[in-house]
Amino acid sequence: MILDKVNSPDDLKKLTTQELKQLASELRDYIISVVEKTGGHLASSLGVVELTIALLKVFSPPKDEIVWDVGHQSYPYKILTDRKEKFKTLRQFGGISGFPSIKESPYDAFGTGHSSTSISAALGIKVGKRLKGEEGHVIAVIGDGALTAGEAYEGLNNAGQLKEDLIVILNDNEMSISKNIGAISNYLTKLTTGESLRRAKERLEEVTKKIFGDTFYKGLKRVEDLIVKGLFPPGMLFEELGFRYVGPIDGHDIETLVTTLRNVSKMRGPTLVHVLTKKGKGHKPAEERPDKFHGVSPKKLLSEPQPPTYTEVFSKTLVEMAEKDSSIVAITAAMPSGTGLDRFAARFPERYFDVGIAEQHAVTFAAGLAKKGLRPVVAIYSTFLQRAYDQIIHDVALQELPVTFAIDRAGLVGEDGATHHGAFDLSYLRVVPNLVVAAPKDEEELRHLLYTAVYSGRPFAVRYPRGRGYGVTLREPLKKIPIGSWEVLREGGDLLILATGWTVYQALEAARELSAEGIEATVVNARFIKPLDEKLLKELALKHSTVITVEENAVKGGFGSAVNEFLALWYNGRVFNLGLPDKFIEHGSQALLRKLVKIDKDGIKESVREILGIIKR
Amino acid sequence: MILDKVNSPDDLKKLTTQELKQLASELRDYIISVVEKTGGHLASSLGVVELTIALLKVFSPPKDEIVWDVGHQSYPYKILTDRKEKFKTLRQFGGISGFPSIKESPYDAFGTGHSSTSISAALGIKVGKRLKGEEGHVIAVIGDGALTAGEAYEGLNNAGQLKEDLIVILNDNEMSISKNIGAISNYLTKLTTGESLRRAKERLEEVTKKIFGDTFYKGLKRVEDLIVKGLFPPGMLFEELGFRYVGPIDGHDIETLVTTLRNVSKMRGPTLVHVLTKKGKGHKPAEERPDKFHGVSPKKLLSEPQPPTYTEVFSKTLVEMAEKDSSIVAITAAMPSGTGLDRFAARFPERYFDVGIAEQHAVTFAAGLAKKGLRPVVAIYSTFLQRAYDQIIHDVALQELPVTFAIDRAGLVGEDGATHHGAFDLSYLRVVPNLVVAAPKDEEELRHLLYTAVYSGRPFAVRYPRGRGYGVTLREPLKKIPIGSWEVLREGGDLLILATGWTVYQALEAARELSAEGIEATVVNARFIKPLDEKLLKELALKHSTVITVEENAVKGGFGSAVNEFLALWYNGRVFNLGLPDKFIEHGSQALLRKLVKIDKDGIKESVREILGIIKR
Repeated sequence: MILDKVNSPDDLKKLTTQELKQLASELRDYIISVVEKTGGHLASSLGVVELTIALLKVFSPPKDEIVWDVGHQSYPYKILTDRKEKFKTLRQFGGISGFPSIKESPYDAFGTGHSSTSISAALGIKVGKRLKGEEGHVIAVIGDGALTAGEAYEGLNNAGQLKEDLIVILNDNEMSISKNIGAISNYLTKLTTGESLRRAKERLEEVTKKIFGDTFYKGLKRVEDLIVKGLFPPGMLFEELGFRYVGPIDGHDIETLVTTLRNVSKMRGPTLVHVLTKKGKGHKPAEERPDKFHGVSPKKLLSEPQPPTYTEVFSKTLVEMAEKDSSIVAITAAMPSGTGLDRFAARFPERYFDVGIAEQHAVTFAAGLAKKGLRPVVAIYSTFLQRAYDQIIHDVALQELPVTFAIDRAGLVGEDGATHHGAFDLSYLRVVPNLVVAAPKDEEELRHLLYTAVYSGRPFAVRYPRGRGYGVTLREPLKKIPIGSWEVLREGGDLLILATGWTVYQALEAARELSAEGIEATVVNARFIKPLDEKLLKELALKHSTVITVEENAVKGGFGSAVNEFLALWYNGRVFNLGLPDKFIEHGSQALLRKLVKIDKDGIKESVREILGIIKR
Repeated sequence: MILDKVNSPDDLKKLTTQELKQLASELRDYIISVVEKTGGHLASSLGVVELTIALLKVFSPPKDEIVWDVGHQSYPYKILTDRKEKFKTLRQFGGISGFPSIKESPYDAFGTGHSSTSISAALGIKVGKRLKGEEGHVIAVIGDGALTAGEAYEGLNNAGQLKEDLIVILNDNEMSISKNIGAISNYLTKLTTGESLRRAKERLEEVTKKIFGDTFYKGLKRVEDLIVKGLFPPGMLFEELGFRYVGPIDGHDIETLVTTLRNVSKMRGPTLVHVLTKKGKGHKPAEERPDKFHGVSPKKLLSEPQPPTYTEVFSKTLVEMAEKDSSIVAITAAMPSGTGLDRFAARFPERYFDVGIAEQHAVTFAAGLAKKGLRPVVAIYSTFLQRAYDQIIHDVALQELPVTFAIDRAGLVGEDGATHHGAFDLSYLRVVPNLVVAAPKDEEELRHLLYTAVYSGRPFAVRYPRGRGYGVTLREPLKKIPIGSWEVLREGGDLLILATGWTVYQALEAARELSAEGIEATVVNARFIKPLDEKLLKELALKHSTVITVEENAVKGGFGSAVNEFLALWYNGRVFNLGLPDKFIEHGSQALLRKLVKIDKDGIKESVREILGIIKR
């Protein structure tokens, strides 16, 4: 095994081309074998095996710095730099992260996770190196999908101006997570298929015939290729933005990659290298359905039928509603499958909009649709919605336009870790005037809250967790839940538990078990975070001397904080806020992380005992 | 006067070209005369007088819908549609807004204020019209500066894909608020100066000589222009993004504008019309220094020397620090003058980065610089920092990179109104782990907090208001203020006032006046919102049965909310949170708005009396 002998980039540099090819093959096997156990982002990493090898053959991190956009594709890099053994702990609690992390290794130049930051970060690093008098290349590796995001363009625009020696590798696999979208993608396709050249030839023919006549044009035919290639260098869009364009080149041909990168390393100014790769390369199932192999779960034995995921319930409910109402339109920022909008897309293609990795545009675009009387539903993960915060405030809430935000992956997401937890949405959204913020206790309530949101005529956010529901029935006809109404699930005199979202059933179960210990709790499903059910809250608070709030959101500024605000002036009892602590939470299984931060049944029980103990003391 | 006869777009449609020219001139005079009294954005509006007239000659709002990007330039449109008389109330409390507003007029298709939303909104409106079966054109008018923002590109990218009949008018005045920045700007310059053509000719010469020899090339010279124009249609960058490009045309020539827009109105698919205008056109002082006339304050008599603005103090202090420390670098998103970084730019051009209207990139770029050991200071207005929320969390705080955020215009900004108040930053920032959040009580403390931030080695936000300081001395040597330390300014037994930022002196003054009524308050300068001075807070809270928090930030989730969180579990007294109410606050003078929301001295006094009254009752 060659991989056995490669323990650092220096080892790799000594290998022959033949050995590098062998290494690529072994690396693929290793990645597949680990990811089958741990889960992870298989397809993107398999696509860049040769590219990573070539980069490490030509460049020398950490002196040369490589920023991997999004970072899904960094597995080969992790293995070949300094995490070959540790790679087996991928995405496990206490193990290595599924994304680059500056805390994990000096070889990781910049942490990523969200899309399209790499050009900006790499440019900052390059300028920093120059100002510090430090040697070394800086390279951003960015996918074609990530290039649809505004920040990538902002980075290109600034880099083209600053003229630093920045290398941007465009890893063009013709899809981001799912099928790629937008004019920039069409442009890349034209570049790679020779469509640009064909059009240039047509123009040449037209112009020549018009000016010199047919006969002359026929004479020209012979040298047409030469003329066209001389007149129209490929990648003019990037050239216009101040970059030198190199490519497109085959991203699985190590020799070409190494030669090209060597040449590029000697160029000055910003250079964009267009590399064509195949997502999932070398793994048949992943090559055929890379969207299905974008994120892979560990292999499981088939078991009992399980409850549907919140995503599935959202997906079906929206289609159910849209069957009856042609004014419902759906928008995703390049996540049709992850958000469940793929079903809507298949059923109502004309009312479905995948705008690319462009959360800002997605939200303002939805606001425009709402202005025309449509009922837009924007489905974005909690952590990615942070990208559109200004648009939520400025374009939707300020104008009171009825846009529904379907916020998936709210709370702890598990193995994707710190960059992907939806830890802040309740905090940053409940601050926004005019916005309703809700969270269902289970998948059945998600259906009704979605219905309530779409027909509220108001800006409305519904947030729900990653993973499966509680297995409750899904048969009730869709109904409106009065905005701001909570639900008392259980009554008891010792304390009042106000729980929201996924934590409601945890609180209820905790209360049942505490009852056996002689502690009787009232449990409320606080399904609206904004507005609060102030009437009920006041009534119940006056009956209890202890209130515990529970949420799967940062305890700072979240639901509990909203309750505090309401009680601060007049409440005589004690309030304890339970939620995510004020720190970034690492990766690990969702269940384990929920246990660690004590928002599950056992954590709630522990907190109740502790609080009541403190008070009795 | 022709303007007297124009009370609607229909009246305008009847005018001859000669009359339209006369109208343009009268319109300019009217705008200048009003803005000299009210203050406002003069230069941008003067630049689009002819464009607005031509748009209203050709198109028919509200059936046709025009989205004005940013909206600074919408004054002529407001006057010519339905707000000719009301225009005299521009930006006054109760008067019309300085920006388009859907609540103000049916002619305003979409509200704006922040940059670069127009293409996204217009695309949404266009798709909405189509799905609803509604007739009418949709037009986005966007400046060249706004084109540097990611969202504009996301919009173009999506529009190029959807192929809707969308008209984008690129209002190219070669500057946004100040000198324009970035590769896209260079590209536009090349388009308008014929630089693209020149380069194309060079390429043609080179290729022709290589293939056919010198003699042939000389023969070709005669028809070179024809060939080049045939081969290289201008605006290829936009064409590559799926737009038809028309222009550039003279934006002050009404006849050409009308003819062009008539032709464009018959085209299908996305079309970009490149219009060249001059900011401040027709007003000599504004033409010469459009950056100074971007926002104009009402004319004032010269008066006593006044305290410097917070912006000026920030500006000078940063330069003072940078003189001694070459690792300090400064970043602005196209606001060198507004943020006061122009002084830094003049003194340290090599360490100064204006990245264009690109807040997302600005923050990630700064993170990259910090990663290399530099001390970046990113100066962005509170309201615009909302654009970079994800980058603050994901690129700075998560990686604990020492970036300083200098947040100007935090709190109520006055006449710019709802889109521009910095109402939310304390709420959305204090939620972010690892981030320090501070606000100075006066301009002297701003100096020390800035110094503290830059040398803290941590992600650190300092927020300060628009306008002048309190006139305190600025002579102390810069010093570090212990992170999380508050300051007791006054002691009294009746209640505890915790104030932050601009409200501190208001609280102190209120306390002094209340003392005359026999109410004695302790007043604390809570200069850190995160972390709180928990030791001091606990100690003082235990001594008082009433706590009032005061801040110039949304009361939801803000500083008061942080205090509530700390007190909720164990405090027996009452807490009252004073701050901005949970709604969008309109425009009006800063002093009037502060009075209205009761965060000034009088408001605090009133609240104190009320609270103590409630308790005594």
